[in-house]
Amino acid sequence: MLQGESFDAWSEFALTRFEGLLDAWVPASAPAGLGEAMRYAVLGGGKRLRPLLVRAACAAVGGNEAAADRAAVAVELIHAYSLVHDDMPCMDDDVLRRGKPTVHVAYGEAQAMLAGDAMQALAFEVLTDDESIDPALQANLCRLLARASGHAGMAGGQAIDLAAVGQALNEEQLRDMHRRKTGLLLQASVMMGAACGAPSAAAHQALLTYGADIGLAFQVVDDILDVTQDSATLGKTAGKDSQANKPTYVSVLGLEASRRYAAKLRDEALAALDGVKGLADQRLRELAFKVVAREY
Amino acid sequence: MLQGESFDAWSEFALTRFEGLLDAWVPASAPAGLGEAMRYAVLGGGKRLRPLLVRAACAAVGGNEAAADRAAVAVELIHAYSLVHDDMPCMDDDVLRRGKPTVHVAYGEAQAMLAGDAMQALAFEVLTDDESIDPALQANLCRLLARASGHAGMAGGQAIDLAAVGQALNEEQLRDMHRRKTGLLLQASVMMGAACGAPSAAAHQALLTYGADIGLAFQVVDDILDVTQDSATLGKTAGKDSQANKPTYVSVLGLEASRRYAAKLRDEALAALDGVKGLADQRLRELAFKVVAREY
Repeated sequence: MLQGESFDAWSEFALTRFEGLLDAWVPASAPAGLGEAMRYAVLGGGKRLRPLLVRAACAAVGGNEAAADRAAVAVELIHAYSLVHDDMPCMDDDVLRRGKPTVHVAYGEAQAMLAGDAMQALAFEVLTDDESIDPALQANLCRLLARASGHAGMAGGQAIDLAAVGQALNEEQLRDMHRRKTGLLLQASVMMGAACGAPSAAAHQALLTYGADIGLAFQVVDDILDVTQDSATLGKTAGKDSQANKPTYVSVLGLEASRRYAAKLRDEALAALDGVKGLADQRLRELAFKVVAREY
Repeated sequence: MLQGESFDAWSEFALTRFEGLLDAWVPASAPAGLGEAMRYAVLGGGKRLRPLLVRAACAAVGGNEAAADRAAVAVELIHAYSLVHDDMPCMDDDVLRRGKPTVHVAYGEAQAMLAGDAMQALAFEVLTDDESIDPALQANLCRLLARASGHAGMAGGQAIDLAAVGQALNEEQLRDMHRRKTGLLLQASVMMGAACGAPSAAAHQALLTYGADIGLAFQVVDDILDVTQDSATLGKTAGKDSQANKPTYVSVLGLEASRRYAAKLRDEALAALDGVKGLADQRLRELAFKVVAREY
């Protein structure tokens, strides 16, 4: 990283690199149209927040960038597969994502389900497919990703989300749902980046707290944007959660209190990083502001 | 392994142990009914051929049994998730599996999709969740499993299968479809068991050949049973592939030639093991006969 380089220059460089990696690793050659559906699902769209968190956390601890490249691709593959499955008729039944028809609209439900399944497998293949990376790091990255995305994490959060339609959740229940559904994978992005280096115990704990706060803040902002933005800006159907009678931070806390809560979580994430020795945390701090200030 | 122990005694012991591992590792506690659906999908049913292949191959090379336990659970989780997704209305739309209503019939489509997704993640968590196992082995097991189950393997084979309905495939195309859809995961079961030890290059090559032959033989027999057995015996809907106008070995080769081909593949699998030094291959040989002689 160049000293004094702007956030925009840093993220543009990181994302250009990232898109090239995705393009190389998501195979057009997969049979019978499967590769085409996978590439449609993950290339050329999305905020790429998770890859940026991986890279920022890796930079903070001076970690192995080749490993972070793989971690970034893997976590984005998991995120993208979850959107493909979540958009299907049996789940949220959505037709618009990242400003394009959803995968099942473009390729059919069966191919969409298979593309999601294959993207999950590819994530773990990408993490374990380079003999130059320490095998202990490979295994650790797999463990972090599997835990965050499975029954105790993202998939479990989706199950709670399904069951919560039309239910009145209290704030604690809502936080638990969001933590699993979105927060743990965002936190895992930070911790996977950190695992590419050797953070001190204090740095590790600070990054865990930062990741948890940012993960929750992201979802609070998502709930706000769902009611304040239109579909064209979001690139997905706006107002969906409230129409579906799903509990959200806006429905539980109200709009203004949700905004204050997102800012509070950002400040707590930043505070967690304060005074931790040996942590080059500039990009993480900038990302915390971006997450809360985002408009789509 | 006791000298002279019968195959039945060996497999009964291995499967009792295996069911206990599954019961311990597939969490009833996963939220909002997800754990219940996962357990319904994978506990108490199935031939458990893949776990037996893992264990037999591990025994053949004198490998690490704790690692083989995890490999066996992981590969069965992948197999079971693929059945859950394959049975869904947008794929094969089947209502009967292992003699019970399919997961989506019992728990709804959304929960079935999530259960499958969470089972795939759990497979990779199980492989990387024990610090007593060499991290290089953990990473290697993840790599073998991810490759066999992803776009180039099982998911890719399913995509070919989808596209093949009503198509006339030649024998080579049919073999490619079956190799990906079923064969590679069976072969991976053998190679994951072998990876738990340190096979010689010759043994490794012999096990690769054995696994490829057994994997294909399994699917040839599956095609035979689809037309010769009833649903009650199979525990799943019989005659489904021919009704769906899917190409099978029986439709391409005919019934008798398919039987001869399965026996030939078994013999080639056995021949691959002949004369390989240091390979305790008794259980693998017995399993080769079981795969071809099975009646459900």
